[in-house]
Amino acid sequence: MSTSDLFETLDPPQRLLMGPGPINAYPRVHQAISASLIGQYDPVMTGYMNQVQSLYRGVFETNNQQTLLVNGTARSGIEAVLVSVLQPGDKVLIPVIGRFGHLLCEIAKRVGAQVKTIDIEWGEVCSPEQVEKAIKAFQPKLFATVQGDTSTTMNQPLAEIGEICQRHGVLFYCDATASIAGNELKIDEWHLDAVSVGLQKCLGGPSGSAPITLSDRCAEVINRRKHIEAGIRAAHHVEGCDAMIQSNYFDLAMIMDYWGPERLNHHTESTSMLYAARECARLFLEEGVDKVIARHQQAGDAMASGLQAMGLTLFGNQQYKMNNVVGVYIPQGIDGDKVRQQLQQRFGIEIGTSFGPLHGKVWRIGTMGYNARQDCVLTTLVALESILLKYKVKVSSGQAVLAAMAHYRD
Amino acid sequence: MSTSDLFETLDPPQRLLMGPGPINAYPRVHQAISASLIGQYDPVMTGYMNQVQSLYRGVFETNNQQTLLVNGTARSGIEAVLVSVLQPGDKVLIPVIGRFGHLLCEIAKRVGAQVKTIDIEWGEVCSPEQVEKAIKAFQPKLFATVQGDTSTTMNQPLAEIGEICQRHGVLFYCDATASIAGNELKIDEWHLDAVSVGLQKCLGGPSGSAPITLSDRCAEVINRRKHIEAGIRAAHHVEGCDAMIQSNYFDLAMIMDYWGPERLNHHTESTSMLYAARECARLFLEEGVDKVIARHQQAGDAMASGLQAMGLTLFGNQQYKMNNVVGVYIPQGIDGDKVRQQLQQRFGIEIGTSFGPLHGKVWRIGTMGYNARQDCVLTTLVALESILLKYKVKVSSGQAVLAAMAHYRD
Repeated sequence: MSTSDLFETLDPPQRLLMGPGPINAYPRVHQAISASLIGQYDPVMTGYMNQVQSLYRGVFETNNQQTLLVNGTARSGIEAVLVSVLQPGDKVLIPVIGRFGHLLCEIAKRVGAQVKTIDIEWGEVCSPEQVEKAIKAFQPKLFATVQGDTSTTMNQPLAEIGEICQRHGVLFYCDATASIAGNELKIDEWHLDAVSVGLQKCLGGPSGSAPITLSDRCAEVINRRKHIEAGIRAAHHVEGCDAMIQSNYFDLAMIMDYWGPERLNHHTESTSMLYAARECARLFLEEGVDKVIARHQQAGDAMASGLQAMGLTLFGNQQYKMNNVVGVYIPQGIDGDKVRQQLQQRFGIEIGTSFGPLHGKVWRIGTMGYNARQDCVLTTLVALESILLKYKVKVSSGQAVLAAMAHYRD
Repeated sequence: MSTSDLFETLDPPQRLLMGPGPINAYPRVHQAISASLIGQYDPVMTGYMNQVQSLYRGVFETNNQQTLLVNGTARSGIEAVLVSVLQPGDKVLIPVIGRFGHLLCEIAKRVGAQVKTIDIEWGEVCSPEQVEKAIKAFQPKLFATVQGDTSTTMNQPLAEIGEICQRHGVLFYCDATASIAGNELKIDEWHLDAVSVGLQKCLGGPSGSAPITLSDRCAEVINRRKHIEAGIRAAHHVEGCDAMIQSNYFDLAMIMDYWGPERLNHHTESTSMLYAARECARLFLEEGVDKVIARHQQAGDAMASGLQAMGLTLFGNQQYKMNNVVGVYIPQGIDGDKVRQQLQQRFGIEIGTSFGPLHGKVWRIGTMGYNARQDCVLTTLVALESILLKYKVKVSSGQAVLAAMAHYRD
């Protein structure tokens, strides 16, 4: 292979990532991820693993012993929970408020579960009454939902659902990838049994690590399916009594033994991503859960006000909007992708397109993690306004930034 | 949460990792992994993805179009291939030459395949005659093997097996995680249909990314199972005719569409790990495949000679030893873990323990990637000799380093 085929030294351009994620990571996360590697059973490494468990108990506001990282992107955490909890034939109830509800259904079907959906119009959320009615009729083993579905920017209320699930003996799982750290999520108080997330939204890290937490009763359900690999199994090992989990990589029973005092070898922990995950949690907890969420709410409100002041229309039921992302209708007669391209080429700013029914109709603009800041909000608004003016869209010039600034003290 | 619960700033100790992996990453990989993030559909990002495909075609010495990264540790690549190729009931033949042969069986069983093994004594390898005889008798869809099995340090010869598989219409998969870049692997010349690896051995990167490559005929088998997610499916989509792949995360048909010109959204690519994988490949190709392998052979030979000159006995059939790791019997009456602990505490050097039948009997010492260097070999030998002398093991003092130095020019 000639040297010309080796491509240039890595040097990605500076971008301000104001889409629905991934977003720019905190500078300290970039420092942490580049730290030296150590062996996987080095006491320093197992010490870091224990710290990560403790830190994510803080992030998740939970006392769950089983709080750990799955080594993959956010959807690896979803699949790990679903394949470990659901046996073929098990019933799962899923509200579909957007694309990521479809994803939960898709994964659950592939693991052989019977899936029942509660279909919600995009831009709305599911009520506790709808959930209870469907639970009574379907009697699922698991209720699985997305909290913040970035495809619609809606934030599914969860506070009342856990109690309903408990009353009917149903396990309660939530994918909070897009909402964690930007919106309230009280795992123990709301009786959630399993939650999985990713780093690349409001936690301000790179994609590629999936923190999860499991209640004791959920861990018990999973451990009844425990099976230890032949290559490392001790003679006295007793197999679990339920059907073997149909994935090795996502077998949370084995992953719990890798993170637990047993330290049974499973995968080789992705050390660099663990360093990143650790730093994301430290940043979150240093700032404090309430302050982080308030900062996201302030930035999200400022962005939404700015867009409206410009004369644009927001998408979806604003009562349930996530703090960290807003959907906005593309003005009539404008090519949404062309505007996005101009924003990137001229300002280095990225905003998001949409999937499915909203494709070509709605932009999605995020204010997440490191970018949930006044300067990011204002810069994005002035840049968008300039490009819209270039395309002769009638916008109330200068009003967006004034409206956004009003959300911040002088 | 109080500040005392946030733990200290990440600052892992300096270690010389001379075990069976993970090992120290190349400094340039640490630089690359900390680069700024960009959006997943940024033309620069999709450009990097294309570059990574091209670079790994170079690493794998293949023309396979389908060459890409699975977002997870090495075993995620194994599971992605097995779950995508094998339908429930399909037959797979697997030689078990060590722990990682067991792992292939385990994963294949979980995806519902019928598994037949060729059981080989630890320290030996499987002959082409054994493979052909078993293929004739069992008539599998897939022959799956590990190339270098670090649990025994043996390197399974593959050169003659591909032709046998082709003759019998059998697909040929190899997990080359531990052998790639340290030992010859000619994917196209040897007619391999699927190969998966990791970064954390001779490629000199962190664990957490799994490069894989698929022949056209293997990609075709997988694409017959293609299924597109409801959330992003176009109206004209035609479903594949074979059984749906039972994992979403590891559905290589979908992952190929994410890496291909379709750019259909699947996971959010782990950008930082992609940066690391890109730099590992650039380092490998800059040095050149023959030189990298020769460097591993030289370091491995030097280490083996040194250990023998010290008076220790090597494990396994040396004719088939991997270049990049050696097994050595722990001297009689010595606590192997105590010696490893002393090496780490006094010298900051890590060597490996063993699994299963070799546990407590054999140490495994690696010379991989950035650490396949004379100074690493010599330092490890003098350190090990010092600790053995401390424990009053009769070693031929000073001979190890002389024997190892003889493998390098003055």
